[in-house]
Amino acid sequence: MVGGGKDAFIGAVHRIAARIDGDYDLVAGALSSTPDKARESGLALGLAPDRCYGSFEEMAEREAARPDGIQAVSIVTPNHMHAAPAIAFLRRGIHVICDKPLTATMEQAEELAAAVRGSQALFILTHNYTGYPMIRQAREMVAAGDLGRIRVVQVEYPQDWLTEASEATGSNKQAEWRTDPERSGAGGSIGDIGTHAHNLACFVTGLQVEKLAADLQSFVPGRRVDDNAHILLRFAGGARGSLWCSQVAPGNENALRLRVYGEKGGLDWAQEDPNYLWHMPFGQPKRLLTRGGAGASAAAGAVSRTPGGHPEGYLEGFANIYAGAAQAIRASAKGERAAVLDLLPGLDAGLAGMRFIAAAVASSQDDAAWVAL
Amino acid sequence: MVGGGKDAFIGAVHRIAARIDGDYDLVAGALSSTPDKARESGLALGLAPDRCYGSFEEMAEREAARPDGIQAVSIVTPNHMHAAPAIAFLRRGIHVICDKPLTATMEQAEELAAAVRGSQALFILTHNYTGYPMIRQAREMVAAGDLGRIRVVQVEYPQDWLTEASEATGSNKQAEWRTDPERSGAGGSIGDIGTHAHNLACFVTGLQVEKLAADLQSFVPGRRVDDNAHILLRFAGGARGSLWCSQVAPGNENALRLRVYGEKGGLDWAQEDPNYLWHMPFGQPKRLLTRGGAGASAAAGAVSRTPGGHPEGYLEGFANIYAGAAQAIRASAKGERAAVLDLLPGLDAGLAGMRFIAAAVASSQDDAAWVAL
Amino acid sequence: MVGGGKDAFIGAVHRIAARIDGDYDLVAGALSSTPDKARESGLALGLAPDRCYGSFEEMAEREAARPDGIQAVSIVTPNHMHAAPAIAFLRRGIHVICDKPLTATMEQAEELAAAVRGSQALFILTHNYTGYPMIRQAREMVAAGDLGRIRVVQVEYPQDWLTEASEATGSNKQAEWRTDPERSGAGGSIGDIGTHAHNLACFVTGLQVEKLAADLQSFVPGRRVDDNAHILLRFAGGARGSLWCSQVAPGNENALRLRVYGEKGGLDWAQEDPNYLWHMPFGQPKRLLTRGGAGASAAAGAVSRTPGGHPEGYLEGFANIYAGAAQAIRASAKGERAAVLDLLPGLDAGLAGMRFIAAAVASSQDDAAWVAL
Amino acid sequence: MVGGGKDAFIGAVHRIAARIDGDYDLVAGALSSTPDKARESGLALGLAPDRCYGSFEEMAEREAARPDGIQAVSIVTPNHMHAAPAIAFLRRGIHVICDKPLTATMEQAEELAAAVRGSQALFILTHNYTGYPMIRQAREMVAAGDLGRIRVVQVEYPQDWLTEASEATGSNKQAEWRTDPERSGAGGSIGDIGTHAHNLACFVTGLQVEKLAADLQSFVPGRRVDDNAHILLRFAGGARGSLWCSQVAPGNENALRLRVYGEKGGLDWAQEDPNYLWHMPFGQPKRLLTRGGAGASAAAGAVSRTPGGHPEGYLEGFANIYAGAAQAIRASAKGERAAVLDLLPGLDAGLAGMRFIAAAVASSQDDAAWVAL
Repeated sequence: MVGGGKDAFIGAVHRIAARIDGDYDLVAGALSSTPDKARESGLALGLAPDRCYGSFEEMAEREAARPDGIQAVSIVTPNHMHAAPAIAFLRRGIHVICDKPLTATMEQAEELAAAVRGSQALFILTHNYTGYPMIRQAREMVAAGDLGRIRVVQVEYPQDWLTEASEATGSNKQAEWRTDPERSGAGGSIGDIGTHAHNLACFVTGLQVEKLAADLQSFVPGRRVDDNAHILLRFAGGARGSLWCSQVAPGNENALRLRVYGEKGGLDWAQEDPNYLWHMPFGQPKRLLTRGGAGASAAAGAVSRTPGGHPEGYLEGFANIYAGAAQAIRASAKGERAAVLDLLPGLDAGLAGMRFIAAAVASSQDDAAWVAL
Repeated sequence: MVGGGKDAFIGAVHRIAARIDGDYDLVAGALSSTPDKARESGLALGLAPDRCYGSFEEMAEREAARPDGIQAVSIVTPNHMHAAPAIAFLRRGIHVICDKPLTATMEQAEELAAAVRGSQALFILTHNYTGYPMIRQAREMVAAGDLGRIRVVQVEYPQDWLTEASEATGSNKQAEWRTDPERSGAGGSIGDIGTHAHNLACFVTGLQVEKLAADLQSFVPGRRVDDNAHILLRFAGGARGSLWCSQVAPGNENALRLRVYGEKGGLDWAQEDPNYLWHMPFGQPKRLLTRGGAGASAAAGAVSRTPGGHPEGYLEGFANIYAGAAQAIRASAKGERAAVLDLLPGLDAGLAGMRFIAAAVASSQDDAAWVAL
Repeated sequence: MVGGGKDAFIGAVHRIAARIDGDYDLVAGALSSTPDKARESGLALGLAPDRCYGSFEEMAEREAARPDGIQAVSIVTPNHMHAAPAIAFLRRGIHVICDKPLTATMEQAEELAAAVRGSQALFILTHNYTGYPMIRQAREMVAAGDLGRIRVVQVEYPQDWLTEASEATGSNKQAEWRTDPERSGAGGSIGDIGTHAHNLACFVTGLQVEKLAADLQSFVPGRRVDDNAHILLRFAGGARGSLWCSQVAPGNENALRLRVYGEKGGLDWAQEDPNYLWHMPFGQPKRLLTRGGAGASAAAGAVSRTPGGHPEGYLEGFANIYAGAAQAIRASAKGERAAVLDLLPGLDAGLAGMRFIAAAVASSQDDAAWVAL
Repeated sequence: MVGGGKDAFIGAVHRIAARIDGDYDLVAGALSSTPDKARESGLALGLAPDRCYGSFEEMAEREAARPDGIQAVSIVTPNHMHAAPAIAFLRRGIHVICDKPLTATMEQAEELAAAVRGSQALFILTHNYTGYPMIRQAREMVAAGDLGRIRVVQVEYPQDWLTEASEATGSNKQAEWRTDPERSGAGGSIGDIGTHAHNLACFVTGLQVEKLAADLQSFVPGRRVDDNAHILLRFAGGARGSLWCSQVAPGNENALRLRVYGEKGGLDWAQEDPNYLWHMPFGQPKRLLTRGGAGASAAAGAVSRTPGGHPEGYLEGFANIYAGAAQAIRASAKGERAAVLDLLPGLDAGLAGMRFIAAAVASSQDDAAWVAL
């Protein structure tokens, strides 16, 4: 693991997600950009002292050289520190599981893309919300034509944790780097959560956003990146939609929600209640599909661990990305390509996300003019 | 009553709304543009034969001449037939309660505006959703500063009844006139339900939409007006928002919902569950305020008939407009202006709605360019 | 109307319910047991002075003697004052619409029963919750066998308004008479709301409670009747169930809820959200049926006024009892029996309710021994 | 681990729960009562061949003798096979984490109790629902007096998986042993889920059930144990309540729900949506407390891994029992008693559960007479 030392939120999430199905052992890490802290965090996690590295370069080099070196690395650093470590490991044939968005800048994204294309190793991007069972089922239903031709896609992702200027208090590192364009990139809410929303809408519908018109705001005085965004979406093939993301909407914790409407029906899913999927066939009563329940499909079942009514959550959804990556890594070791790769976000999703961020920022700077992705 | 003969949905609603509080007696009508049907409908409703009129002109003239003539008239015709009857009655000093939107065209709206301004009689527009108790409370809370300065306004109004081409079946009169630009005006979903959404957002927040960027669609082949609209909103004072209305979103019956977020908190209200209002003070647990419950305010109580837990609905909300109009009419008879008029939609709300429709259509024709209202 | 003067909750509800469909005109009343207050309340409601009576006896006698005398009377007094006025009007052939429960005591109930049986006039008991459209549909679905043989019936009716000793404050007349066994009868929560719950369970399932075991409590010190009750139910035919009613359950306003489970499926309905009915066919996804929606049946449609998504509430449900009574009265005037009488609670439901109250009180006094109804 | 071979539901759950926080390594097992299957399952889980045992006796003996022998064992067999292995390990000083209910019979329970009392090793019973963060918070709130003196406790646990005679199909091993009194004990639904409901009610309120009156049914023809139970509860100190559990209630997957009402307020929690806890302070609006949200307490935070809006579920709740056990085991190794033991169900909870099952069966056999626990 690169990044994810003490107090880092997402690093701990990745570690649990990797543990849930027993597919991974954490054996090495460069857990902080501060060597002392890296070592201390590594020891606290039970790593052998000689595998607590002070930098990702050292880790990549030394692990690649060990006969028992790591097969895969998780990169859980801030956005501007995704590309360099990912490239270092990919070049040495070590599989990379990387937090989203792809990178902080388009330039970094292109360098990383070249490295991915030039490597035999796998590159998986943790757009973790695609791992939820009912999202897998939603995608399957759309693909099977259950909704008919898609017309309207409504996706929203409001939060409230940046309602006040937390980045200015000196005590919230999360808020600091996520509102710092040097570290997070040009997008604020757009980059942090808007990309998740965009990715989820595309994943479920199988459609690509062709162009968008974005109105980004920084409501909190002094904030250097957007903390709210309203975006009109036009999808290839004629569907329309809108995307709203916000970090200043009080009462919303992590309220990602996707609604898709087609000629024959609709779907409605909310991340905070992820075991439910509403299916609204036109002209019939609404149906509440439940993970593990009578209406759950094979796609949902493939990534479920417990029966209906035994709720799974965020960590299990995240674990499904890791479990899929483990399948793909095992297949790769045999020289095969695992079918699950069709469901796992990777370079293409990452580049689409970067184009989405760039287009949103450009559109907003041009007073919400349409910008093609 | 003008319009509202047999099979008309909204006419029956107006009649019940007028009856609930016992303030009105229905004594005269021109209930259809077809004289025979008008008479037949009137007799069925128990009107005296000599007060079943074949046209609104006749009704206005004859009722104005009777010593026991009507004090007020309800106009519940399709949009293109609002202005002419309203003007006829206003000129004769008869109060007008008129269905929304104001008219089908801006020209009609201006003629009607002149008539309202030139009359002593009252003009009330039934933007009925403003009559819900928890909406009155929401407005009061925003005005009292409970949310702080408003930043984001999310309003949506999806329905599904026009998912298919019902207007082409020959058996759905509602669908026919509401998708006919001659009768409903240039807006389809925008005029029918988008105006309600726009009105509600402005009513609750006390803010005006300064400009908008609209992307209107007609998804159903052959449809002559929009059946779905995505709109970016910029409010005077800096708040931003988005409005989505749709008549092609399967699983949505009449799903008007308003969310308002400010520096200090948020509100969330849904028309289909109107006795509830979520209040989300920032940094505190969400609170579910209920009509008649411990958190209900005086503004809500003033338009409630039953205690908490005894749900009121659409008809009671509509009746609150009629009850308010009755108060205003009684005050007017004494030469006074009722305070409730501040809460009742009238000419200003109607003109704002017309500008909203016109701006949305113009923006969409200009590829979602910003248009000022 | 008898009872229902100023400040009476249920009287006002009956008046609105009677007005909604335009079937009734209120023309006479003995609105209070205090003659002055009766007159004052009558004038305030627009009654002619000579039809504001000081007592129900006077009213019954005089109205029966008038050529334009009332056809029907609503009795909305406390429970101990149901029987005497009902008998007075029934004897004179005037139809009676009476609030529930039937009476305060079993002796009164028997006297009233004799009067009903001896009269040509109709007797309707306002177990108003049976008027909700989705309850009518639930009953129809059970009768049609959609659930198969019924096994389990869960009904509950918690409120919180008597959590404290409101009856001792001197300012809550509702609380005073409802906790006074002289006026309300031996049952407190059992009589006020438990009877509604019992009635609803029987109405929907078509089953009768054969015996019960009841554990009644008076949690508030000094309270003379029960304010909470837990009851085991055994239905004829083998179904089992439980009933919980409470007036001391904070956070519950009027939370009547009925769940019915059979061999083939279940139903779930909650009074505070009455436009929804969950249908859970075994082995299939849950379906949310909505009043006016695609899954609504003819039985629901017959008592609906607005389309799906336009919520109806408590007053409309109550009005459905009045509307049914109006149909029955009109048929009666022609010497016919209206089919709707099969759906309207009357003497039989009232007597069953009285037996239910008596059995619950007797069982509880015998330490929750089984008591047959 | 003892039990939990291929196809066993609860064994897999225990393994994931043990892995989530990285506190345990699975190194040995007697995973089936069939030696071949035990070995095969062990190898599939990555155990060393010499630690795949054919019986729990062999495992206890051999592991106790190894210098690197197990510190703790999980027992996840059917109920009748809890006592013997637990005793075997406890005698050797190996900590035991055991699935609930304690045993199949009271005799077994007493033997096990003696072994627990005679051992230095810890005994933890996986009444896993007590591990949910909002349940911990509910317990803390009751203990702090937030609800005042408790009056009413409503607990229910409906499921639908035994609506039909699944045990007779020959293909549902779960259904077979859970409906076989030889293996599950005298209680069917009572033993499987009723004990969870009873345990949860006692855990949260801190109250003990003093006596109960139970009406148990076996609705499915041929079933040998109860599949539905209605129970009246009387708690020490005067609170009353009811418990309903069912395996034949279509539409209910795993719908454990607890409501507690006191003089000052109420709480409402549902297992299928476990990140929410309703708090209803009397006379104030309801508040929705969320795990990780503004209203979450220290007790909830101590067992949370992710921020608000990132839902945790059944596996995390279960893992909290394992994490607590790990803390207690570590403390035990230092000769200390961990404070978390006050929150972990153990022998006392297990014995209370056995008394509950026995009392319910006895009461039902005596026609729902009161039976003391």
